[in-house]
Amino acid sequence: MTAFHFNLVACDGAARRGRVMTAHGSFETPCFMATATAATIKAMHPEAVRATGAEMAICNTYHLMLRPTAERVAQLGGLHKFMNWPGPLLTDSGGYQVMSLATLREISEEGVIFRSHLDGSKHVLTPERSMAIQHLLDSDITMCFDECTPHPATHEQAAHSMRMSMRWAQRCHQAFQKREGYALFGINQGSIYPDLRRESATALKDIEFDGYAVGGLAVGEGQDIMFRVLDETVSFLPQAKPRYLMGVGKPDDIVGAVQRGIDMFDCVMPTRSGRTGQAFTHRGTVNIRNARHLNDPRPLDERCSCLLCKNYSRAYIHHLFRAEEILGPMLLTGHNLQYYQDLMVDLRKAIEHQTLTDFVVGFHEQQARGDIEVLE
Amino acid sequence: MTAFHFNLVACDGAARRGRVMTAHGSFETPCFMATATAATIKAMHPEAVRATGAEMAICNTYHLMLRPTAERVAQLGGLHKFMNWPGPLLTDSGGYQVMSLATLREISEEGVIFRSHLDGSKHVLTPERSMAIQHLLDSDITMCFDECTPHPATHEQAAHSMRMSMRWAQRCHQAFQKREGYALFGINQGSIYPDLRRESATALKDIEFDGYAVGGLAVGEGQDIMFRVLDETVSFLPQAKPRYLMGVGKPDDIVGAVQRGIDMFDCVMPTRSGRTGQAFTHRGTVNIRNARHLNDPRPLDERCSCLLCKNYSRAYIHHLFRAEEILGPMLLTGHNLQYYQDLMVDLRKAIEHQTLTDFVVGFHEQQARGDIEVLE
Repeated sequence: MTAFHFNLVACDGAARRGRVMTAHGSFETPCFMATATAATIKAMHPEAVRATGAEMAICNTYHLMLRPTAERVAQLGGLHKFMNWPGPLLTDSGGYQVMSLATLREISEEGVIFRSHLDGSKHVLTPERSMAIQHLLDSDITMCFDECTPHPATHEQAAHSMRMSMRWAQRCHQAFQKREGYALFGINQGSIYPDLRRESATALKDIEFDGYAVGGLAVGEGQDIMFRVLDETVSFLPQAKPRYLMGVGKPDDIVGAVQRGIDMFDCVMPTRSGRTGQAFTHRGTVNIRNARHLNDPRPLDERCSCLLCKNYSRAYIHHLFRAEEILGPMLLTGHNLQYYQDLMVDLRKAIEHQTLTDFVVGFHEQQARGDIEVLE
Repeated sequence: MTAFHFNLVACDGAARRGRVMTAHGSFETPCFMATATAATIKAMHPEAVRATGAEMAICNTYHLMLRPTAERVAQLGGLHKFMNWPGPLLTDSGGYQVMSLATLREISEEGVIFRSHLDGSKHVLTPERSMAIQHLLDSDITMCFDECTPHPATHEQAAHSMRMSMRWAQRCHQAFQKREGYALFGINQGSIYPDLRRESATALKDIEFDGYAVGGLAVGEGQDIMFRVLDETVSFLPQAKPRYLMGVGKPDDIVGAVQRGIDMFDCVMPTRSGRTGQAFTHRGTVNIRNARHLNDPRPLDERCSCLLCKNYSRAYIHHLFRAEEILGPMLLTGHNLQYYQDLMVDLRKAIEHQTLTDFVVGFHEQQARGDIEVLE
């Protein structure tokens, strides 16, 4: 069993090219993790997800504690075996979902009491319980349980929320059962306020985590503000540990965040869009449900190597979505994940070759060219 | 381009082991065709369907004429290219679906005027139009357009309906554009009445088709009556041509029909059941949604080689169905298709080795053993 560690392989400006070792294998960074909320990457066989180049997936504590329960997953041999994902897994702590999905929440210093969005049953999530659940799931990277600060928040609200999350981070660190190859990440909070982001970073560094996430962004503040907060926040984080921007994002969000020194990403966008007919392509986003694809014999994206682009016409994918056939979401999710993984490959190569600036110029030209449709 | 033909390889009692050559390759019989109603086998990549052993798929004239239209499929290079199915394809004529799905039908000697179940638009389907549509689709095996006699039907109703279908069969034969490797099958009707089945068989043989289907069964008459009608009807059909029992059926229906000399089958059961949680296994049918699978670490069917049985526990599949995750239908459809194809392999081997009687005894013992649940 190898120890959990992060190798920094190359830098290009603030951008970093690295490799993370975990108990279940390594992954290259910058990386995009496939979203496997309920222990499945929606509409995908896990083998097909790995074939896109994805080395890492992210599951959700909130969803799995309710169904099938962490105890049941543990009894069945852990999450990797349960969902047939032999590679590294990260689990979100449930903090965000308790706020966005659960009902009748009561938040206190101790933790959160809430009712399940599935059946109304009552549950408690505390820093200690979140650590125990993620341990039962056998997650390679455990995330601290924090409060997701709403946006917008006043400086006072953001400070109050962030400071409680930092006290919870200390409790997570104490409760986390260290094992060789397994990691615990702290989560930086502080909304859009640089002084709070700095205070949060200092608090986390004092506790000492295996990696540092930036939380509370991509919640409606807009890309300009997100990038400004990132510029400031990343400068407060240690160089030697992986950095994870939670829940981000669109392709150009990822490109900009990589330029600012982020190593890890996750987002429902490629999978969710894949189920609704939105495609990410080398000429921007495309809505395959649009009638102009009705007779189009061309592949969706000539530069893509996925099953959809190799074997089918735009007209066929359009037909599948019009007819509400499951193969539509299956193929388009696969395509979108391939697009995201290809983007990460390109970003990693560009950092290695010190050509990131040129790559980013080309990326924005490409995205602006051709038949762009705005992703709603 | 090879001519369409049927090679009879071996017999065991009335059961036949054969091979059918078509313009898009050959298939072994007895065969079970994968249902691809709207030019997709629901919840399956076509490569994965072929990996189960399926060599042949069946699409539907009614569905495809409405969406995306036969003209569009033709313009896009035909059905094989459109849906990425390089192997042989059969198309149903639309007769059955016009009766079961369309609204405001007016049936006359000329054909059927109806309204689409999708948007209420008005359409006409005649023997000539059905032939033209199936030609545009580029179907390897075209089915005659017939009237599906309702069940139950009096002798008079059944005779009237069958005789119109026989006149339509003559018009189909005249309208069908012969091409090397392409075939037209006639459809035997006559409800449960032996004299009408014989009259229908004689009429079809006089016209001379490339294969003969038995229609109007598995419509609620029960297995005993179906087998009795089959015993009689098959004896009226030519030995040298393939025989196709339309829309059948459950595994034991197929076994019994193979014993009675049927070569080809199609049924939505494995795919539709796969989407609702019903599994076909070597110990009978299983409802994976049942709570007793909640903690079960065993594979669904130890004798099966599909992705589901190789890589997942019953508990995981149960979880996927409870959580309404698309991977559940994907995996279970794959399993059910594998079960059906494995059954066809076993039947073909048993006929080759003249051991069909023993195989059938073993099959029924297996199905009666273990934790059988009745398929609703």
